[in-house]
Amino acid sequence: MKNNIEIGLLGLGTVGNGIIHILNHHKKELIAKTGATDVSVRKVLVRDLEKQRGENVNKEMVTTKAEDVLDDPNIDLVIEVMGGIDEAKQYIEKALRNKKHIVSANKDLIALHGDELLSLAEENNAEFLYEASVAGGIPILRSLTEGLASDRITKMIGIVNGTTNYMLTKMTKEELGYDEALQQAKDQGFAESDPTADLEGLDAARKMVILARLGFSASVRLDDVYLKGMNAVTAEDIDFGQQLGYTLKLIGIAHRNEEGIEVSVEPVFIPEDHPLASVHDEYNAVYVYGEAVGETMFYGPGAGSLPTATAVVSDVMSVIRQIRLGAATQVNVADKSETVLKKEEDIRAKYFIRLHVRDVAGAFKSLTSVFTSNKVSFEKLIQLPMESEELAEVVMVTHETSRTNFEQIINDIENLDVVETVKSRYRVEGGEADVPEQRDLALV
Amino acid sequence: MKNNIEIGLLGLGTVGNGIIHILNHHKKELIAKTGATDVSVRKVLVRDLEKQRGENVNKEMVTTKAEDVLDDPNIDLVIEVMGGIDEAKQYIEKALRNKKHIVSANKDLIALHGDELLSLAEENNAEFLYEASVAGGIPILRSLTEGLASDRITKMIGIVNGTTNYMLTKMTKEELGYDEALQQAKDQGFAESDPTADLEGLDAARKMVILARLGFSASVRLDDVYLKGMNAVTAEDIDFGQQLGYTLKLIGIAHRNEEGIEVSVEPVFIPEDHPLASVHDEYNAVYVYGEAVGETMFYGPGAGSLPTATAVVSDVMSVIRQIRLGAATQVNVADKSETVLKKEEDIRAKYFIRLHVRDVAGAFKSLTSVFTSNKVSFEKLIQLPMESEELAEVVMVTHETSRTNFEQIINDIENLDVVETVKSRYRVEGGEADVPEQRDLALV
Repeated sequence: MKNNIEIGLLGLGTVGNGIIHILNHHKKELIAKTGATDVSVRKVLVRDLEKQRGENVNKEMVTTKAEDVLDDPNIDLVIEVMGGIDEAKQYIEKALRNKKHIVSANKDLIALHGDELLSLAEENNAEFLYEASVAGGIPILRSLTEGLASDRITKMIGIVNGTTNYMLTKMTKEELGYDEALQQAKDQGFAESDPTADLEGLDAARKMVILARLGFSASVRLDDVYLKGMNAVTAEDIDFGQQLGYTLKLIGIAHRNEEGIEVSVEPVFIPEDHPLASVHDEYNAVYVYGEAVGETMFYGPGAGSLPTATAVVSDVMSVIRQIRLGAATQVNVADKSETVLKKEEDIRAKYFIRLHVRDVAGAFKSLTSVFTSNKVSFEKLIQLPMESEELAEVVMVTHETSRTNFEQIINDIENLDVVETVKSRYRVEGGEADVPEQRDLALV
Repeated sequence: MKNNIEIGLLGLGTVGNGIIHILNHHKKELIAKTGATDVSVRKVLVRDLEKQRGENVNKEMVTTKAEDVLDDPNIDLVIEVMGGIDEAKQYIEKALRNKKHIVSANKDLIALHGDELLSLAEENNAEFLYEASVAGGIPILRSLTEGLASDRITKMIGIVNGTTNYMLTKMTKEELGYDEALQQAKDQGFAESDPTADLEGLDAARKMVILARLGFSASVRLDDVYLKGMNAVTAEDIDFGQQLGYTLKLIGIAHRNEEGIEVSVEPVFIPEDHPLASVHDEYNAVYVYGEAVGETMFYGPGAGSLPTATAVVSDVMSVIRQIRLGAATQVNVADKSETVLKKEEDIRAKYFIRLHVRDVAGAFKSLTSVFTSNKVSFEKLIQLPMESEELAEVVMVTHETSRTNFEQIINDIENLDVVETVKSRYRVEGGEADVPEQRDLALV
């Protein structure tokens, strides 16, 4: 039983510094809770030896040679917070082959190569934990694999990208436009200088892949995710949704039923009294449905140096407990049965559609005939006059239909002479929205 | 390494039946996730041998003799869901001495004797888990001890009693009176026939004791909890609070700072945009503040057969993993440093006060002089005329002050000739409430 735990750290950015802060600041409690006599960072891989470091990092600790960390026999556990894919993967593989336990915050890597790395960890009797890779400070992976372990999870709905949630909150509450909201997110440090992966939903998709794998014990690949970014969202769409009782969020959905699994990331309207609708600003939340437990939700900061570092160090503590128990072997016995993805025609949802329709006799009849011939009715509809007297704004929410049928409907609508343009279309989730009576709507 | 895990069950009420349902219904996944070859219930202690049981309970399994469960060498793990204190304690102690692991859902027992039973478990190298004892299906204990293990928790605010939250939701949203709300809770199965422990806050206090102990690694006793039930809450109080932007909830608060620890349960006003304010009906939630992670919240069902059983079976799975790892020993190394409770004068909060004041010249001056002489100002105030022309309704929210100072203020107010009666008083938590501009208030 090893009592003095020594850590190797790959990367010393904001999260790396947060980890060193927590390890030092909470050392007494950390030792008390794990029973270790000491927990310390032995070596840190950095890019620049000369850079000025904080008081807890001395010259002897830093190195630019990965092998100083990966081959040091005194190091029990390697924390990877360097990011990127190829180099990080190579280092983690080497550390695992050297029988070192791994804690990683690298969602890109785990979404792409998680299965492979976990197998390698198992072969080497090493732990591999990655709580920080999804929803920063929220202990959601642990809740899925342990707290709700006895249940059968059927659905997860996640707000797992802080940048887009911050922007959508500003667009909803302060009626900012897309560009203004993005600029504010950058100014506040909630968007990176290149926010493409956030705006296009790729960042959220990586996290949903990790959630779906763990929650469903299934093999889900990034390519399996249906992906639609928030680039086309407008303030008008949000406003029309609100008039119908909905809030727009960039939502990841992972769902399974007897037909298979679906994973998607797209802007989705949810009823404004749904718990996810009150997740504001840069906060994240994951709503989990289990057959037995029903509805639960886990809410907290999705990013940031200290929240992410908390998740990493909590993983470190789990590993230390395992080391101290002399049980440094995962009971990694996930269901290896084949993963079946739902067919497009089995992916069912309600949809919000916004159209500009020519204000001519028979226009409405042509429109409704498209729905009738595709066997879908709509549960809500607003028609509003527009400044141009020749056009009318039509907003509708359909009853549930399949994705293939919905695409057919959109195609048919676009071919109607009376339809000038399909302005926007969104999936609708989370049950029925109540349209407050006092709202001044031209409901048909 | 034992691969075939046999369970003894003490009690076969709604939760007990839920446990048997989940163990059977999810057996395949349970086995896959723990690596056990089988997990089954061997013996069940019941009161009545003749009672008709479900298809998963046969005659050979049930017994009325506790020793058939506690002394059976084949039983690895005992689940206690019989409730009550003395008998349950005695059985658990015997099982622990026989080196059996324990999973319990018994908050009354754990709030009173948790420390003692955990020590006995440690002596006998047995696991003792009790996730189901707090907030039913929400994996909150695990989140505190593992997910947020690396952080220093400073505050927990919990809605941990479903009965009172259901009633307060009805009183708030549908403007029901207290008695009507209680009757509905009974009709819906959310209140027991004798709801005293719920209404007086005792049930919530037990859960807060368990949360405070785990979250703060401290010894907190039930007697240490400041307790005020919801028996005196009126629909008018709720309505006046709403006018000031607050929602009333029966809230458990556990807070620690350099002055010590406080634990309380009482009806509290929180700002209506606080995440806890949108926890409706019978749902529970625990808001957790950690120094590093910041704000997190855990939301879900607080009771019910299957949610509670989910928590129990998840604990069972943790124990099985430990058994299979051959590591059946807790690394139970909580901080044993002495627990210091805050003094009354160090417990600080804002307060809501509602008064009936005689409508005479100088009344307001006498009232404000009480606050001035006690060095507290108020941040919000409404004065409204009443049907009786001689009286005015005055509602105010103070700035933060100590509990002792607040009691002095109430005492001074009650002694004023111009005050007819102090109608109600509530603690206010969770930051500033925005008073929406469009509200028609006589704000002074």
